[in-house]
Amino acid sequence: MRAIVFDGDLRYSADYPEPTRPPGEALIRPRLVGICNTDLEITRGYMNFRGVLGHEFVGTVVAADNPAWLGKRVVGEINAACRRCPTCLRGNESHCPYRTTLGIDRRDGAMADLFTLPETCLHEVPESVSDEAAVFTEPLAAALEIVEQSHIRPTERVAVVGDGKLGAMIVQVLRLTGCDLTLIGRHPERWELYRRQGTTCVPSTDVPPHPFDVVIDCTGNPAGLAIARQLVRPRGRLVLKSTFAAETHLNLSMLVVDEVQLIGSRCGPFAPALRLLERGLIETQPLISARYPLSAGLEAFAAAPGQLKVLLSV
Amino acid sequence: MRAIVFDGDLRYSADYPEPTRPPGEALIRPRLVGICNTDLEITRGYMNFRGVLGHEFVGTVVAADNPAWLGKRVVGEINAACRRCPTCLRGNESHCPYRTTLGIDRRDGAMADLFTLPETCLHEVPESVSDEAAVFTEPLAAALEIVEQSHIRPTERVAVVGDGKLGAMIVQVLRLTGCDLTLIGRHPERWELYRRQGTTCVPSTDVPPHPFDVVIDCTGNPAGLAIARQLVRPRGRLVLKSTFAAETHLNLSMLVVDEVQLIGSRCGPFAPALRLLERGLIETQPLISARYPLSAGLEAFAAAPGQLKVLLSV
Ligand SMILES: [Zn+2]
Ligand SMILES: [Zn+2]
Ligand SMILES: [Zn+2]
Ligand SMILES: [Zn+2]
Repeated sequence: MRAIVFDGDLRYSADYPEPTRPPGEALIRPRLVGICNTDLEITRGYMNFRGVLGHEFVGTVVAADNPAWLGKRVVGEINAACRRCPTCLRGNESHCPYRTTLGIDRRDGAMADLFTLPETCLHEVPESVSDEAAVFTEPLAAALEIVEQSHIRPTERVAVVGDGKLGAMIVQVLRLTGCDLTLIGRHPERWELYRRQGTTCVPSTDVPPHPFDVVIDCTGNPAGLAIARQLVRPRGRLVLKSTFAAETHLNLSMLVVDEVQLIGSRCGPFAPALRLLERGLIETQPLISARYPLSAGLEAFAAAPGQLKVLLSV
Repeated sequence: MRAIVFDGDLRYSADYPEPTRPPGEALIRPRLVGICNTDLEITRGYMNFRGVLGHEFVGTVVAADNPAWLGKRVVGEINAACRRCPTCLRGNESHCPYRTTLGIDRRDGAMADLFTLPETCLHEVPESVSDEAAVFTEPLAAALEIVEQSHIRPTERVAVVGDGKLGAMIVQVLRLTGCDLTLIGRHPERWELYRRQGTTCVPSTDVPPHPFDVVIDCTGNPAGLAIARQLVRPRGRLVLKSTFAAETHLNLSMLVVDEVQLIGSRCGPFAPALRLLERGLIETQPLISARYPLSAGLEAFAAAPGQLKVLLSV
C-alpha cells in the first residue's frame, strides 16, 4: 500500500506492507489526514519515531471486532493504552506508561491506505460534520484540554501566544468562555478570522504592558515561551502547549517569587471536540492552506512549514 | 414622568416624580426594559419592594458627573454597593450588605422615563449589539455567574432544569463549554432553538435515568428543585438559580450521604456577557415574546406569566 514513512529520512513508499489487524483494533481507511507541527518535528528527530506518520485523521472503518463499527466514519484518540495498569485504571489512559501513540511513538500512523487503532479509541463523526471539519478533531481536543484542566473564568484576561495551527484551535475554544482574549502572533495575514470572532490580535513585537491572568504558550519555540512568561501576572497561570525538540530554560526562581502556576497540557477529550464542531462553534475552512493527494505527500511536507493546515487526501 | 410602580398593587403612573441625580450617579433614559420572573415575584410580595420596577434595561445616559458617559448607550449592573465596607473592599460588591438593588431593593427601577444608577455600574454597549440583544445582558450575566463560580468541564454531563427565561440564557452559555448538555423542561414549543444549537431537550415527565455531574435548577419552583436534586450524581454539584418567595425543603442528610455540593448563584459579570453578545454567540431574537409601550405596562405584566421575554419600549 501507499504510505508516508519516516526512517531517518522522509520517504513516500508505494509498497509499504499492509497492517494486520490485532484483536480489539479496527482497520481504518483514512479519508483526510492533517499535517501537524509534531509531524514536522518528528522529521527533525522528535520522539525518535520510525514508521508511518500521521495522527490527525478522519477515516472509514473497513474491519473491526465489533461489527457496529463497519462502514462508520470515525476520528480516533491517538494514545493506545494498555487499559490494565494502575494509571489506566485511574482513568488516565492518555498517560499510560505502556501506551503507543499513532504516528508518534511505536505505532504506524494514518498517512497510508490503511492503518489500525484500538476500537476503544474511536469516535463516530456526526453526519453534519464534514470531513474537512472532522480532521480538526484531534487538535481541537488538544485545545479543549486547557479548559478541561483549568477553570478559565469569563472575567479573566487571557493571552494566547502563537498564531499557528494549534493557536487557531485554542483561540476559538477560549473565546467561547466569554473571557477577555488576546492573540499574540507573528502572522497578521491570519488574523481576519480571529478579529471577526471578537479576539484582539497584536504582533509579538508589540506586547501589551498589562499582565494577563492566564497565558497559553503554543509557539513551539523558546522565544515564544519567553514572551508568554513575561505576560503572566503574579499568581497567574502559564499553560504550556509547546513540545520542543530542544531543551528549554525558564527562570524557575522567578516563578516562585511571582507564585506563577505552570501547567503542562497535551492531548484532550474527543467527545466535546465533536460536540463543538457539530454545534457549529469552530471555524475550520479558513484554516486549510492546501490539500494534496497522499502520493504527493513529500510535496505536502515540503510546503507545510509556515502554513496553516495542510491536508492529505487518501 | 411615566412609571410602572408597585406599592402593594401594581400601578401605571403618568406623573411619578422625576428622580434627582445623586453625586456619582448617572441619569438614564431607558430604551428597552425586560420583564423578568423577579418582577413577577415582587408583585406577589418578594423582597417587600415598593417603588418603580425594572432591572433589565438598555438606555441612554442623559446626565452624569463624568461627561464621557453623556449620550452613551449603556447597560448596568443592578447592585449599587457602598464601595467602602470590608465586603466591597474585598471585591465582592454585589454582596455589599449596604447595597440597594435596581427595581428590587430600596432603589427605583428602570420602568420609567428616567432613573439613576451609579456610574460605576455602567457598561457601554458595543455598536454591533442591538438594543434587543443588549436588554438580555443582565440575565446573560446571571447565567455566566455559573461558569464564573464553577469549573464546568467539557467532558461533564450537565442538566439544566427549567426552560424559562433564565434557562434560555443558561443553556446557551453552557453549550459553549462543549459539555454534554440536556435541558429538562415543560415547554416543548420552545425547544426548536436549543435543539438546533445541539442541546438535548427532554420533558420533565421523562427524566433521564443516568445521573449528571452538574445540575442547574432554574425552575423557580420547589417541584423543579426536587427533580434537579434527583438528577445529581454522588459527588456532583447542584447549582441553585431559583429564588423562591416561599421556603423550600431539601433533604440535607441525603446531600451529606451523596456528598453533593450545593452552590447558590445569583448576579453575574456584565463585561463577558457583552463580549458573548458582541461575538454573536447568544441568540436573543427568538426569546422575545412580545413588546409593549411603557404606557401599556400593566397589560405587559398581565401577559408576561408563561411567556419568554416581554419587553417594554420607553
Ligand atoms: Zn498533532
Ligand atoms: Zn496502562
Ligand atoms: Zn431579573
Ligand atoms: Zn459595601
